[in-house]
Amino acid sequence: MSRLLDTPDGALTYAQAGVSIAAGHEAVERIRGAVATTTRPGVVGSIGGFGGLFALDTTKYTSPVLVASTDGVGTKLEVARRARRYDTIGLDLVAMLVDDLVCVGAEPLFLLDYVAVGSLDPSRLAELVAGVAEGCRRCGVALLGGESAEHAGVMAPDEVDLAGFAVGVVEAGHELGADRIREGDVLIGLTSPGLRSNGYSLARRVLLTEDASLDAPAWPGADVTLVDELLRPSVIYAPCVRGLIETFGLGVHAAAHITGGGIVGNVARIVSDELDAVIDLTSFETPEIFFEIQRRGPVSAHEMVRVFNCGLGMVLALDPDVAGAALTLARTTHGAHVVGEVRAGTGSVVLT
Amino acid sequence: MSRLLDTPDGALTYAQAGVSIAAGHEAVERIRGAVATTTRPGVVGSIGGFGGLFALDTTKYTSPVLVASTDGVGTKLEVARRARRYDTIGLDLVAMLVDDLVCVGAEPLFLLDYVAVGSLDPSRLAELVAGVAEGCRRCGVALLGGESAEHAGVMAPDEVDLAGFAVGVVEAGHELGADRIREGDVLIGLTSPGLRSNGYSLARRVLLTEDASLDAPAWPGADVTLVDELLRPSVIYAPCVRGLIETFGLGVHAAAHITGGGIVGNVARIVSDELDAVIDLTSFETPEIFFEIQRRGPVSAHEMVRVFNCGLGMVLALDPDVAGAALTLARTTHGAHVVGEVRAGTGSVVLT
Repeated sequence: MSRLLDTPDGALTYAQAGVSIAAGHEAVERIRGAVATTTRPGVVGSIGGFGGLFALDTTKYTSPVLVASTDGVGTKLEVARRARRYDTIGLDLVAMLVDDLVCVGAEPLFLLDYVAVGSLDPSRLAELVAGVAEGCRRCGVALLGGESAEHAGVMAPDEVDLAGFAVGVVEAGHELGADRIREGDVLIGLTSPGLRSNGYSLARRVLLTEDASLDAPAWPGADVTLVDELLRPSVIYAPCVRGLIETFGLGVHAAAHITGGGIVGNVARIVSDELDAVIDLTSFETPEIFFEIQRRGPVSAHEMVRVFNCGLGMVLALDPDVAGAALTLARTTHGAHVVGEVRAGTGSVVLT
Repeated sequence: MSRLLDTPDGALTYAQAGVSIAAGHEAVERIRGAVATTTRPGVVGSIGGFGGLFALDTTKYTSPVLVASTDGVGTKLEVARRARRYDTIGLDLVAMLVDDLVCVGAEPLFLLDYVAVGSLDPSRLAELVAGVAEGCRRCGVALLGGESAEHAGVMAPDEVDLAGFAVGVVEAGHELGADRIREGDVLIGLTSPGLRSNGYSLARRVLLTEDASLDAPAWPGADVTLVDELLRPSVIYAPCVRGLIETFGLGVHAAAHITGGGIVGNVARIVSDELDAVIDLTSFETPEIFFEIQRRGPVSAHEMVRVFNCGLGMVLALDPDVAGAALTLARTTHGAHVVGEVRAGTGSVVLT
């Protein structure tokens, strides 16, 4: 008999230390159905193993380059926590991840989520994961796995964090990026109706003061409440961008997902040293929520365009020969505008 | 001129809201060197793009099945925070991730980390990521990307969470698992000198009381301090398990990484319904730290083997024809013992 099998009296359990294995099992059962709805060709087996399995299609990709991204949803979760509404924050996570992958030209394949909580509430977890699954379905991505971590005694019981990880694939030589962008390229922007998942520390500081009512109009005269505006789900651009790549092939040169760093910081990532991206801020409509943040902060213009998307969630650089047709195609699913062009320059983003 | 470019006076900045883009840039610069040391064949480009790129070797894998895992290090981080020592917690993260991948038989390829903090301290982040990079080097995995999220006003300034995601590849048909295990298989265990990264909510409750001294002996007469014991880095078994698979091929039937759920919960994942895994707890040495937790809790034997690894970090099921040679090979890098066998049964883990 092993010493380990000597059982002392009045013994302490893991549950008494704040971690419930039973709640974990209940949570897994609740999310199993949502996960199953995201299956797609390539998925092998089901949840419960030591890893999620995905068979790569080597007839479609003969020189496959895997592309991986990780991100969280930042303190947009704090709005969700205050509103106790977790059903759409998973959409934001999926958007943050897959819209990065398509900027490299990749087809998003699968995604895994990581949820950290102070206390594991199976119904809250199910709500979160249902949103992740809904996002996955919208872009044809499999939710291949996930982890729910209970940080008892470290995080407050209702505190929650959500992060994720996604993998896509692109054929070698078909990657988008700064080395494909050319002078004369047309910049097309896909519109964003809200903040997506960036700038929330500043937006909360400005709008979500201690005495702010979540159900008040988002700005004077608004027909949307503050909470609906702040929890507005991120648009997922991946299907549109993939459609453009499949239709126009190498005519799509680069794409910039406008996240932390705003229009300036992200468009800069696709501009090579001898070019400038010139963007006309009047070419698209900036939703009122951004002006409300700017007014009430007040927040300088310099800061606004370095923190927020200001109404543009994705900027694509296209060969001028295909730009017109690409705009028409993009408009079948999103607000889309010619927002500028690529000129000789010094690697800058110039706003007009 | 766009309305956005009207700059109000006395404007608020992102930094005033608690998020420092400059600190973020400093952190990226600090970790760039550590990340570079993890490069390996397959890695394309460097950090800074919208995704990390990895070219799959299709000469080595003709029917590649990707395997993905996600995990965190749980509240072991709370010990690190109390001790202000973050240099090895990254090793724990890598172990949690890649040792899951090899249980499916996969070659681990790359890893991404996600760090959430209340306030971004570039030197603390650099320390964390240096540990992740060290772990990656130990198992030949590329650190392909990462995200540092500053949750100002939500997490306490010195609060931190660390999670990660890893991807590996296995040739279709070579996956390890419950469907390959057979009656008569020999169970070989690889020893763990400490808690790895599981059971910390219970271990902290028992050992890390408010008045506990981190620098006191871990147990009466111990020559290791409590903090050194609780921060003891996880052994990374992946290179050993990969070596066994490369040497003995399909003679390796299954592997169970002993994490949350302990020996019982994890070995159960590789036992099919008509078999039992019989494990002799006297066949390996349980490190004293586990007995200290059991005594001081007190924690029942039932709970101990369902929460902690109790000295076994990895259990492999092998064809009896190769078990002897496999044990010899495993012992070149780890403590390794025959810990039991597979018998006809009902899908149970039987401890003796």
